[in-house]
Amino acid sequence: MVLRRTPSVFGPHGVSALARRAYSQATTGGPSTSRARATRATLVFAGAALTTSGLLAWRLREPGHQSSVACEPVQRSSSSVKAAPQIAHLDEAVIHDVSAPMRTRMETYVKLLQNRIVTALSKEETGDAGFRIDQWQRKEGGEGISCVLQDGQTFEKAGVNISIVHGKLPPRAIQQMSADHAGLMEKIGDELDTSGKAGGGMPFYATGLSLVVHPRNPYAPTVHFNYRYFELTHPPTLPDGSPNPRYDEKDPLKPVAWWFGGGTDLTPVYLFPSDARHFHGVLKETCDRNDGHFYPTWKKWCDSYFWIPHRGESRGVGGIFFDDLTIGHGEEQGAKSTLTDAIRGGATGEKVPLKDGTKGGKTIESELPQTRETLFTTVRSLGDAFIPAYLPILQSRKAMPYGEREQAWQRIRRGRYVEFNLVYDRGTKFGLQTPGARMESILMSLPLLASWEYGHSYSATNMDMPPEEDDDEEGRRERETMNVLRKAREWV
Amino acid sequence: MVLRRTPSVFGPHGVSALARRAYSQATTGGPSTSRARATRATLVFAGAALTTSGLLAWRLREPGHQSSVACEPVQRSSSSVKAAPQIAHLDEAVIHDVSAPMRTRMETYVKLLQNRIVTALSKEETGDAGFRIDQWQRKEGGEGISCVLQDGQTFEKAGVNISIVHGKLPPRAIQQMSADHAGLMEKIGDELDTSGKAGGGMPFYATGLSLVVHPRNPYAPTVHFNYRYFELTHPPTLPDGSPNPRYDEKDPLKPVAWWFGGGTDLTPVYLFPSDARHFHGVLKETCDRNDGHFYPTWKKWCDSYFWIPHRGESRGVGGIFFDDLTIGHGEEQGAKSTLTDAIRGGATGEKVPLKDGTKGGKTIESELPQTRETLFTTVRSLGDAFIPAYLPILQSRKAMPYGEREQAWQRIRRGRYVEFNLVYDRGTKFGLQTPGARMESILMSLPLLASWEYGHSYSATNMDMPPEEDDDEEGRRERETMNVLRKAREWV
Repeated sequence: MVLRRTPSVFGPHGVSALARRAYSQATTGGPSTSRARATRATLVFAGAALTTSGLLAWRLREPGHQSSVACEPVQRSSSSVKAAPQIAHLDEAVIHDVSAPMRTRMETYVKLLQNRIVTALSKEETGDAGFRIDQWQRKEGGEGISCVLQDGQTFEKAGVNISIVHGKLPPRAIQQMSADHAGLMEKIGDELDTSGKAGGGMPFYATGLSLVVHPRNPYAPTVHFNYRYFELTHPPTLPDGSPNPRYDEKDPLKPVAWWFGGGTDLTPVYLFPSDARHFHGVLKETCDRNDGHFYPTWKKWCDSYFWIPHRGESRGVGGIFFDDLTIGHGEEQGAKSTLTDAIRGGATGEKVPLKDGTKGGKTIESELPQTRETLFTTVRSLGDAFIPAYLPILQSRKAMPYGEREQAWQRIRRGRYVEFNLVYDRGTKFGLQTPGARMESILMSLPLLASWEYGHSYSATNMDMPPEEDDDEEGRRERETMNVLRKAREWV
Repeated sequence: MVLRRTPSVFGPHGVSALARRAYSQATTGGPSTSRARATRATLVFAGAALTTSGLLAWRLREPGHQSSVACEPVQRSSSSVKAAPQIAHLDEAVIHDVSAPMRTRMETYVKLLQNRIVTALSKEETGDAGFRIDQWQRKEGGEGISCVLQDGQTFEKAGVNISIVHGKLPPRAIQQMSADHAGLMEKIGDELDTSGKAGGGMPFYATGLSLVVHPRNPYAPTVHFNYRYFELTHPPTLPDGSPNPRYDEKDPLKPVAWWFGGGTDLTPVYLFPSDARHFHGVLKETCDRNDGHFYPTWKKWCDSYFWIPHRGESRGVGGIFFDDLTIGHGEEQGAKSTLTDAIRGGATGEKVPLKDGTKGGKTIESELPQTRETLFTTVRSLGDAFIPAYLPILQSRKAMPYGEREQAWQRIRRGRYVEFNLVYDRGTKFGLQTPGARMESILMSLPLLASWEYGHSYSATNMDMPPEEDDDEEGRRERETMNVLRKAREWV
């Protein structure tokens, strides 16, 4: 992986040696908060601005990749300039062009959405911090743009990442995947090279946008979303080296299988039921516009996915979660023209199976016939729903007064977030096991600060709790939050 | 699991409602450090001492378990009184009594060692914080004592836990275990109930001591150790319900298999090579007293075990690590009298296989013949070595002046500790998956504070590093530490 990066926005490593020493001398006193530290770093940086031109030149450079994006380094010395990834070279119309490859359409969509969200979040940051924009390339195939705002006044950490990854997917990864994806191995037939002779595996392509926002204010909830598109395509040759009859030179990207996945969920530090209702309300309304069966099924999947078994509690108040959203299970095993029609959106569509993600959970059918076009529309409308679902909550909470006790509780709750992501989250685990993956982008979901206090009153499911009448106001709110996280509930 | 607990040593939840409100009112100002918070909590607690008698009465009670231990609640209002688990009821002589069951001998040893270490660490704490002592019971069989000192001046968090766990081990756990333990399934023969008819599994017993110390001072390294003894015993009946011919009513605890495991390792925030040399020196000297092949083999296993693949770095500078330390592989499958002799220590011993834990690593033989007695002696001498290996390091580092930048780096390094423990540590993973396990005791290894800074200069293996000449003193020390963690080295 080749990485071009801008200097760190707040650590001492983004400034010159001179500024670092000044910074270091200024900070050898007693301990203070990370916030104070950042402020000091910013001041030192501004003072050393003239000496840092060398480092600022160490900016993003794009070594000639096909889908090249030029990026501006974040302007750090002024609060009025907030950068977002450049989008001038992108053609929005391609998103709606049914004759264009889906990968290009989804790629364009996530890049534009990233720009839109980075711009919107930047406006909420009341301090000097801006998004740092890192563009990276994966040696094995692919690229990404990570935009992270860290240690700001509104945001403790906000990461908005896109990635476009392709190459050969190892046989084991495909075989693991097939457990989740009905009929995948049947679709693949004899095309999968498990011998490892020709490098093994099958051509794949994945693109998506991942976002995690940890606000500074303990009353403002953490939010996460991820929407992605995945394709497996035909290799030109079969494992024995003979030409693959299913490979079409004129349409080399015709997929063996393709699917959408994604979800959005909210993690409060202190629960405000009205926030949960608003968030779920926007998601439900968005889903319902596309299919009446989407929200109830995907809401259930979300509750089951974000469960932390060892704590007996949920990561948050959920939202929606889905995977394996595709059509044409029947056709793809047989008549290819039907598959192509369905893929191109030319078919009238069919009802698709919807899983709720629970073990032994039943699969229901969509209410309406779906095509790849309507599913893509659904995913886009959910991506678009992030701003109306989350920003009003952030805006109403980000300036609420809070004290040290709320910060302490926030750090405890952040610790749970770390536990879920490192122990259970499939995406994180997959990323950690992927050679050449960019760890910084995968682990940007982890909070700036997390705490594990032994014997915290609300930290163990089997622990005696102090009598309710002993609760003060903060204790009551902590208890109410945790009680809600112990059992999923309907919000709308 | 039944838990009797003392009030939290520093959170607001350990004090009365009145004191909580006072505390809450005192802390609704701006943010300050967790240390300041703890100090304030302590003061408030002292002021509210007369109103907390009801909560102090909510102390440890032992509901009549066989190996009952009465514990004192931690005295919090005075810095001069430091409590440790009571040991007056224990008979130290049993440790050396070769006719006593090994489980009783090991149990007595770890309880006495826990008391000794808690007492020694308490003396190093310069603030008011004392060890909180929690005694717990596991419904499924077993008990434990967790001693945790948190948010002190010397210690950010120090946990010294013992546990004694028994019951039936599920077939799947035994089968997984057998991959690591040569010949285990052969030893078990037809005794393992995989049908689940009689509850499944086999009787097991495990006892051990686990310790993690995270000092406050960033120059003082984190240390961890764990020593344990494990037994699988014969069930009275075979899976088909018939009497088990290998079960001996007169000696029902005669093991099918038994082994010791354990290790000790050091994790510096800033590396002092002299600390690593001292630590390894004490471990090597201790190992060498018992067998010349122990240290080199177990040092290698430790380096391989504490590797963090996704970071391309080690958790720390290692130490020793071993598992499956047993004798009599041959005899146990055949002549029982020989097994019994070996177990009782009456045999002259035999050279035992020593694994170095690396994949495809070769197994070497111990230099000297070993018996269960000599292996137990080895484990005890390693447990005893903790204080001379670690305390001099802590004493020389705990009062070194440091600033905010060192604290920030400490939090980053703590984050790596969290990553290792949650993603890779077998003990933690096993604990998280065990129903009825006490999460607080398992997760006491996690630090009070951890941080994940996106794009920290030393945080990604594939990241460009700033030019060396830009390093200031702190940067140089961070770099040197990380360079050492990227490749295991010999310290003695």
